[in-house]
Amino acid sequence: MKGSNKVADVIDGKRVAAEIRQEVKQEVEDLRANGVTPGLAVVLVGDNPASAVYVRMKAKACEEAGIYSRVIRLPVETGQGELEAVVDELNADGAIHGMLVQLPLPPQIEERSITWRIDPAKDVDGFHPMNVGRMMIGDPLAFRPATPAGVIELLMRSGYDPSGKRVTIVGRSNIVGKPLSVLLSQKMKGGNATVTLAHSRTPDLPAVLREGDILVAAIGVPEFVKAGAVKPGAVVIDVGVNRVDDPGTEKGYRLVGDVAYEEVSQVASAITPVPGGVGPLTIAMLLKNCIVATRGIAGIA
Amino acid sequence: MKGSNKVADVIDGKRVAAEIRQEVKQEVEDLRANGVTPGLAVVLVGDNPASAVYVRMKAKACEEAGIYSRVIRLPVETGQGELEAVVDELNADGAIHGMLVQLPLPPQIEERSITWRIDPAKDVDGFHPMNVGRMMIGDPLAFRPATPAGVIELLMRSGYDPSGKRVTIVGRSNIVGKPLSVLLSQKMKGGNATVTLAHSRTPDLPAVLREGDILVAAIGVPEFVKAGAVKPGAVVIDVGVNRVDDPGTEKGYRLVGDVAYEEVSQVASAITPVPGGVGPLTIAMLLKNCIVATRGIAGIA
Repeated sequence: MKGSNKVADVIDGKRVAAEIRQEVKQEVEDLRANGVTPGLAVVLVGDNPASAVYVRMKAKACEEAGIYSRVIRLPVETGQGELEAVVDELNADGAIHGMLVQLPLPPQIEERSITWRIDPAKDVDGFHPMNVGRMMIGDPLAFRPATPAGVIELLMRSGYDPSGKRVTIVGRSNIVGKPLSVLLSQKMKGGNATVTLAHSRTPDLPAVLREGDILVAAIGVPEFVKAGAVKPGAVVIDVGVNRVDDPGTEKGYRLVGDVAYEEVSQVASAITPVPGGVGPLTIAMLLKNCIVATRGIAGIA
Repeated sequence: MKGSNKVADVIDGKRVAAEIRQEVKQEVEDLRANGVTPGLAVVLVGDNPASAVYVRMKAKACEEAGIYSRVIRLPVETGQGELEAVVDELNADGAIHGMLVQLPLPPQIEERSITWRIDPAKDVDGFHPMNVGRMMIGDPLAFRPATPAGVIELLMRSGYDPSGKRVTIVGRSNIVGKPLSVLLSQKMKGGNATVTLAHSRTPDLPAVLREGDILVAAIGVPEFVKAGAVKPGAVVIDVGVNRVDDPGTEKGYRLVGDVAYEEVSQVASAITPVPGGVGPLTIAMLLKNCIVATRGIAGIA
């Protein structure tokens, strides 16, 4: 078959993320020239290795962009009250414009009351209901949650404006599917798509997904989307990051997306790889939200 | 043609609304037996005739359900600060569990800052971003905005559970289309549908709408949805209420929905009339939200 089919273009998330991070760096310089250094605090409870990696990446990305970063590492047995006290301190700290508590949290911590305790003005993850609501009603100054916002930036900056297109999304999570469906539907730049939100309870799911000029997979199941679920020529965005055992590798696992990459890239016109697709965008969008937060708090439009 | 085609069943919104209002009445009795009388305040600024009618209907519905109601009528020239002071008083008033400011507001009032000033715990319209966010993340205790919630009740209580169905919605407003698309998609009772949110920028709109086993029209254009946009046998829910000039009537106008009722009822299996379809549900759902608010504030589960 090889050679007889055109293989999909690979959408380069690293390139797009680097572009955004460069823009953020410029914005940071402007803010510093105005006497304000953006500051991000990241709170890590416990020693989940994946979380530790993410936190290090976030801190490093801040440093490279000129954003002041502070990592607060708390022991795994930290209590609810202690964590709340840390959130309160950061809410009150004038050097901190954005903050996030790395998820997941240990079982003794009630995640919701932590998420709701973060000052919405500093909530750069955009998980506070106040920020979810502002995003939903189309407030142009709302924080956009990093992954959905990253998907939209990736599309726009790779030449695939969703406006007027049909988009199918599989997966209705609060972090990706639901907010992405709203953002893509809205009457604004990066929106104006006709979105169908599909999920585990959708009958004849492949046929529904095949309606999408753009297909977004965010269901958290390795290689769930097969070639038969993809409209020929569609643009395929793979949000999934799944660890699959692979004794042949040094780490004993490899990362795969929610899309069966090899077969789908024979059908799609463009596709994001895993890793190197949506992933790099999430940190870039977090940095962007730090700028939004800093401008908001400092009152610099 | 008449007689050769089966004409759609008419979905009786008045009957469903009466059923819900009866349930609310029972809940009010239970709350009163617990020493709490639910109280709703409705603020009306100016003398828009349609708004005045709605406000009277809301007050009357409260009375019939045993809910204490208070209507605050303010002159059309009321200033921002005066209206904010009224909201603040009602926020602090222990006899009031739910409140709403009837929209639209006169031009000198900034609507958003009023909506955002209402205590989210008393915001029975569910328009405060905090409540929009809670609804969006699937919080089972969130206020559900009256019209989308009414559409779902109408479906469920008429035997048309949307679970596993394809739903097409035309219209992406913050009051109907967007929240309805979220509620119908969620993993909860009245949800689990596969929803496509279509709008003015959707290419080949009739073909998209025709995918719906259930079609919801909420675009605000009289008789916009024609028979050709309806899948044979679909359930059609018409949220539109439009005044159309009609010199032959006493008032000089008649109310029509967003659906071309006569022709669509030859294709659909069931359809809501206008008036008498979704309309009566909105007040019933407002009363339901008053119960939710009262339970929340009084701490009665």
